[in-house]
Amino acid sequence: MSQSIDIAVVGASGAVGGALVELLEERQFPVGKLHLLASEASAGQSVPFKGRNLRVGSIAGFDFAQVGLAFFAAGEAVTRQYASAAQAAGCSVIDLSGGLPLDQAPRVVAEVNPQVLKTMQPPYLFASPTSAATALAVVLAPLRPLLDWQRLSITACLPVSSQGREGVAELARQTAELLNARPLEPRFFDRQVAFNLLGLVGAVGTDGHAQVERRLIEDLRQVLDAPVLKVAATCVLVPVFFGDSLSVSVQAAKPIDLHAVQAALEGAASVEVLEKDEYPTVITDAIGQDLVFVGRARNGVDDPTELNLWIVSDNVRKGAAHNAVQLAELLIKHRP
Amino acid sequence: MSQSIDIAVVGASGAVGGALVELLEERQFPVGKLHLLASEASAGQSVPFKGRNLRVGSIAGFDFAQVGLAFFAAGEAVTRQYASAAQAAGCSVIDLSGGLPLDQAPRVVAEVNPQVLKTMQPPYLFASPTSAATALAVVLAPLRPLLDWQRLSITACLPVSSQGREGVAELARQTAELLNARPLEPRFFDRQVAFNLLGLVGAVGTDGHAQVERRLIEDLRQVLDAPVLKVAATCVLVPVFFGDSLSVSVQAAKPIDLHAVQAALEGAASVEVLEKDEYPTVITDAIGQDLVFVGRARNGVDDPTELNLWIVSDNVRKGAAHNAVQLAELLIKHRP
Repeated sequence: MSQSIDIAVVGASGAVGGALVELLEERQFPVGKLHLLASEASAGQSVPFKGRNLRVGSIAGFDFAQVGLAFFAAGEAVTRQYASAAQAAGCSVIDLSGGLPLDQAPRVVAEVNPQVLKTMQPPYLFASPTSAATALAVVLAPLRPLLDWQRLSITACLPVSSQGREGVAELARQTAELLNARPLEPRFFDRQVAFNLLGLVGAVGTDGHAQVERRLIEDLRQVLDAPVLKVAATCVLVPVFFGDSLSVSVQAAKPIDLHAVQAALEGAASVEVLEKDEYPTVITDAIGQDLVFVGRARNGVDDPTELNLWIVSDNVRKGAAHNAVQLAELLIKHRP
Repeated sequence: MSQSIDIAVVGASGAVGGALVELLEERQFPVGKLHLLASEASAGQSVPFKGRNLRVGSIAGFDFAQVGLAFFAAGEAVTRQYASAAQAAGCSVIDLSGGLPLDQAPRVVAEVNPQVLKTMQPPYLFASPTSAATALAVVLAPLRPLLDWQRLSITACLPVSSQGREGVAELARQTAELLNARPLEPRFFDRQVAFNLLGLVGAVGTDGHAQVERRLIEDLRQVLDAPVLKVAATCVLVPVFFGDSLSVSVQAAKPIDLHAVQAALEGAASVEVLEKDEYPTVITDAIGQDLVFVGRARNGVDDPTELNLWIVSDNVRKGAAHNAVQLAELLIKHRP
């Protein structure tokens, strides 16, 4: 075991923060002292780690010089407020909030573009992409040598947990109200999400694109090192608690050999590929797993240059926490 | 009121059959005698029509020479068994099951390609497309003059009612079991559909495409009179009871003028268009309506030749029954 490192987990009371702490223990990450932090409002809770319950403290006034590495898994605003100061204090930062621009915090997926880390100097500051971009990159990167892709068209069906624990509670509450035939008053979301699909997630720009869509596209382009790849993305909020479900259509310049695609996916790290007439689901496959599942790899109905895929992944675990911990493992491996 | 016509509704005990009967009354269709029919197993139920409860009889042995028009809204097998014989008996047939090939039963959407009817001779035999194709055609046809489309990429999120009343009952049952923390044994679907997305709907071909996907593409091409248009389609079963939700990306040869798109949709029949930062949902907009709702009309993030749309429509009412009754209205208008 390598020398241990003191760590801060910001947003430890959230779903992703909890999964981070779990994975640090599970993967026997060489954690020295573990500081669990959250905003003032969320501090005070307890999170289990190695048989003890650790109290979540307030980030306000925390001295990041005490730790060698900090995961930021709270909101974007928290990252924007504290991440640069943490780095300035000598602490490497892995952001999971998407709160920093790509040039300030490059997006890295452990299986796809770990070489980015070698171009940086400690203390590091970089980010794990949005969960859907991480899952997509894990599946698409191994296909890059096979297909001269020209355009991706993505419909990302995001679970309510993408909006935090309040999203999860609200879907449960709405569903129970409806099943008991009680009148429904949406609270956390602006309308009914139970037994319904919301075709717009979060804030929307003047060009009509949601911020999550723009991020998905930008993160994916950076991780795949494909800055001008055309990507159409629509993010939809679905009445699912956990797990991203992604419908992807790739358009290539040349016919795509499905056998080669299947073989490349079978050999890819962190990918579990099903046959073309099989499909994974978040409930039966992805939840709690550190793999991205892909099925239904098929050409277009009469277009061999088209490749369609159905991808599912645990948005909290694989799409966020697992990637971040893998990145941390890479960091300590390359420590001076 | 024009001269009345005797009518048979096959599949009258199903959701679409019920909606057909409702619309015939609501739109004051000149119905003479109304025969409600179903397979032996579903016969015997009652369906209300103009203040009376009509008994659903068995299709076996029914003499279609008694009626001038028959709607086939039962399964494909029923259509394949009886539709040709009905036509041979002098009865015009409007199929809603998709059970007949396109050359035998051309797909017609009232707002889009009604001219097809003029090329035919009575007794007619034609079909209303799959509900998603109907909704897509209603929205896309008015855009045809504006954009030189090259490719459509569609993710169609289909409700459990697309699989009939048993699909509706199964989602309700599964949801109640899960909310009550009882162990779930999927029955009607092969796995959990509550709080989950099934990335493959119904039967799948050796090429990996589901039959519903192939139909969606073929129906859409025929209705839009675009036989070689490239269409990528993925159909997903979602935990929603009623209403299709469609994520569409159009790729055109030239930049697409969003103002012209918005204006064309505002002037289109049976379309309700929202602003580009607004989105309709099946629950809040589409259910029970005879309109197709579209929102989020936006270009690509940095590609003016791309147009993205979010479309919702009542799969039972607008996508099936309403179109079929509109087609019937066209037929009697052109009666000799």
